Amino acid sequence: MIENYKALLKPEAEELQNRLTQAHARLFAQQMQMKDRNLPVLILFEGWGAAGKGTLLGRVIQNLDPRFFTAVSMHQPTAEEKRKPFLTRFMTQIPEAGRFLFMDSGWMSEICHDVLMDRMDPKTYKERIGSVRRFERGLTDNGYLVLKFFFHISKKEQKKRLDNLLETKNTAWQVDDFDLWENKHYDKCFETYDAFLEDTSTASSPWYVIDAKSKKWAELQIMETIVAGIDMALKNHALTVPLIQNTFPLRKMPKLSEVDLSVSVDPEVYKEELKALQTRLHDLHNQAYRRGIPIIIAYEGWDAAGKGGNIKRLTSALDPRGYEVIPIASPKPFEKSRHHLWRFWVRLPKTGHFAIFDRTWYGRVMVERLEGFCSENDWQRAYNEINEFEKELSDWGAIIIKFWVHIDKDTQLARFTERQNTPEKQWKITDEDWRNREKWDAYEVAVDEMIAKTSTTYAPWHILESNDKHYARLKALRIVIENLEKALDIK
Amino acid sequence: MIENYKALLKPEAEELQNRLTQAHARLFAQQMQMKDRNLPVLILFEGWGAAGKGTLLGRVIQNLDPRFFTAVSMHQPTAEEKRKPFLTRFMTQIPEAGRFLFMDSGWMSEICHDVLMDRMDPKTYKERIGSVRRFERGLTDNGYLVLKFFFHISKKEQKKRLDNLLETKNTAWQVDDFDLWENKHYDKCFETYDAFLEDTSTASSPWYVIDAKSKKWAELQIMETIVAGIDMALKNHALTVPLIQNTFPLRKMPKLSEVDLSVSVDPEVYKEELKALQTRLHDLHNQAYRRGIPIIIAYEGWDAAGKGGNIKRLTSALDPRGYEVIPIASPKPFEKSRHHLWRFWVRLPKTGHFAIFDRTWYGRVMVERLEGFCSENDWQRAYNEINEFEKELSDWGAIIIKFWVHIDKDTQLARFTERQNTPEKQWKITDEDWRNREKWDAYEVAVDEMIAKTSTTYAPWHILESNDKHYARLKALRIVIENLEKALDIK
Repeated sequence: MIENYKALLKPEAEELQNRLTQAHARLFAQQMQMKDRNLPVLILFEGWGAAGKGTLLGRVIQNLDPRFFTAVSMHQPTAEEKRKPFLTRFMTQIPEAGRFLFMDSGWMSEICHDVLMDRMDPKTYKERIGSVRRFERGLTDNGYLVLKFFFHISKKEQKKRLDNLLETKNTAWQVDDFDLWENKHYDKCFETYDAFLEDTSTASSPWYVIDAKSKKWAELQIMETIVAGIDMALKNHALTVPLIQNTFPLRKMPKLSEVDLSVSVDPEVYKEELKALQTRLHDLHNQAYRRGIPIIIAYEGWDAAGKGGNIKRLTSALDPRGYEVIPIASPKPFEKSRHHLWRFWVRLPKTGHFAIFDRTWYGRVMVERLEGFCSENDWQRAYNEINEFEKELSDWGAIIIKFWVHIDKDTQLARFTERQNTPEKQWKITDEDWRNREKWDAYEVAVDEMIAKTSTTYAPWHILESNDKHYARLKALRIVIENLEKALDIK
Repeated sequence: MIENYKALLKPEAEELQNRLTQAHARLFAQQMQMKDRNLPVLILFEGWGAAGKGTLLGRVIQNLDPRFFTAVSMHQPTAEEKRKPFLTRFMTQIPEAGRFLFMDSGWMSEICHDVLMDRMDPKTYKERIGSVRRFERGLTDNGYLVLKFFFHISKKEQKKRLDNLLETKNTAWQVDDFDLWENKHYDKCFETYDAFLEDTSTASSPWYVIDAKSKKWAELQIMETIVAGIDMALKNHALTVPLIQNTFPLRKMPKLSEVDLSVSVDPEVYKEELKALQTRLHDLHNQAYRRGIPIIIAYEGWDAAGKGGNIKRLTSALDPRGYEVIPIASPKPFEKSRHHLWRFWVRLPKTGHFAIFDRTWYGRVMVERLEGFCSENDWQRAYNEINEFEKELSDWGAIIIKFWVHIDKDTQLARFTERQNTPEKQWKITDEDWRNREKWDAYEVAVDEMIAKTSTTYAPWHILESNDKHYARLKALRIVIENLEKALDIK
């Protein structure tokens, strides 16, 4: 794949300069069109050390309005970053609609570096490739333009440049140990890079190999590719993309209408058992913390089903330094203008921590679906996107537990009425709750579909029968405890 | 990948029946929308022997209007089909805009069968996978909906079905040797099929694995996938797709303005040399015929440049049973409503034969580009599509020679004027020729770009300096001879 660069035909100096001027002018005009059309553009620069990525980045952005782009230089992940799923540090950087992100080195560098340093086995490599492909497709499916450049120079050219840089103090700092190692092991690196490009070049986000021997010629290749890419993306407004067949193992789940809500627990038994379970959970949480196991608990459920009280019984068993409750409201403008899962990626716990989401990324297939806040294709695609998201978390080592806090329609009415009639509870009931209640049947269809399509074996849904809130609380605690015991391999 | 089918959740009988009725009604409505919107749909059925592909095909089309679909059953290629490039028998079947093609077994069966019979080495397998991916992307990039189903049943289920079929004479004929072999070597086949699905599942034409144990449930899976796929495709009208970087080795070519047109040949020398070259060509053609080497010669050039005379000097050296001259005019409606390369795929020569195209598939990047007969994205994409097309021909073993018959503007004017003033030549000059002449400069830009971007090492352009037609004729003959000598490994 890298060898393709030989096919590029460098124009004569005058033509090159003319085309370069044209491309810069065009890109300057495009930034406003991107803004108007809400197109986010992610541009990744990868390639050999000393191939000129930094310099070229400077040239590409020279005429752009600084309000319209961000440029980041990624290095190998820090210890702190290693406590998050592999994709986190890339996913959290994705641009807002209408803006550029230029990334100097990224997921390719991280993966290839580990391969070259013999720190990644073939199985993990394959897993990473899968993650990368899903990550990039997730972006392009959601309207992002993703352009990936690999800056290529020969071994001889690299050697020459490194020697030049090392000659004077002013530039010697630019050369790091890996650059020298890379040049010494050029053939091995070539093979690794070439395989990575092959493995991750897809129709929707192909790689472009840039002949980087001449800076100006490299600049033209990049500029023209960016300009053509943006033109293409601007034409494809609100693309509908193929739905992919689910590829994850699912558990068979009951429909909500099949759930027996008459289950309950004796108040005395409840008190005792609650205490015992909380003590047990406290202990397990400490062990999970020491072992670095992250736990993600997702709460969804009907209004007034008792989510808040349920969460409270869980958290009161936990060390406050080791958990966070994350309430999810409707997305803010800066969240809405990114991939719908972005606001959850930025809220992931560190290893060893609990993250309890009070409402979640499932809003996409419930409220956003029913209120028309996204297109049909958007929410239909979301089942798979969510399964993929949770797969990343699971591969990272997280325990994922999803609760649907369930009550029947009558119970909701009783609780709404009580709230309305109790002054200190009135803040808990709004007009929106009543409006949502009117849409109960439509919600039930959506929830049934959601539970059927996203109950993967690695992140299953659990239905908490919450007509008796006590029953639901004990059940939640037991499920969390079971999962921790399993992950910690104790019983 | 095959194991994914386990994730499919079969609904209860009543719901299944309701959804099936809905899906059939929807598909019935969609066929008219497809017609209106010119959407072509190719549906491929692959899977285990006795998995029920035939029966299911019958059920899917039961309500469709026979004018809107074709169903073909593909078998292993015949001896005649093996004399064409691998993709030919699939590519030539692609549907017209607004119509369905249902294909029972296709490129998957052919490739996997050869792998299982130890008739395909890993290198060829990799080549075939590349061909298949390019073929499918070529279709989806050009607005085709491609849906691929793999019908899955377990070894046990297959055994049971085969035994049942064999029990009575009426059905025993449906079981062939390969079905029995497949069941006996189920695990080996599973591995081969699974690898193929993995290797060819892409975002734009993903595989759908169908749990085919129950016919009705299989029918629902297929119907709902087809309906969703068509809905998706109908929304994406006139898609603009990413341009892919050229991945083929190119030759550096001069611009037309750099070509020295003053070259000429003495009339006496011409006569002698013409005869010698034609004799040599005649001999080489016979050898190429015996060796089964196909030769494809593509002629493009300015109006009145002398294409006809040039072709004539070539063909008069050839055995009439071994060549065909194929004049290409603007596409007929039935051609226009298919992939732009389709009309060339159906005209490919057999092994050992010469095909001489008088005008070619390059119309896309010349007249269609300049007259706006296709979109900008269409012709920009075409360079790569053409390189891919010619790569298939080259991989098949064809010699590909492309001539640009070149003259300058003054020479054209002189020849036009002569034609106009010579009664027996007046038929050769039309108003369109004069109109095209006015666009000379725009054509020159397009031709330069075409030659630069499609002069691959395996199918290079040759510029024939044709101000002196004699010179151009000898040069053409020499180039054909050289190429034949090289392919036949003689000198």
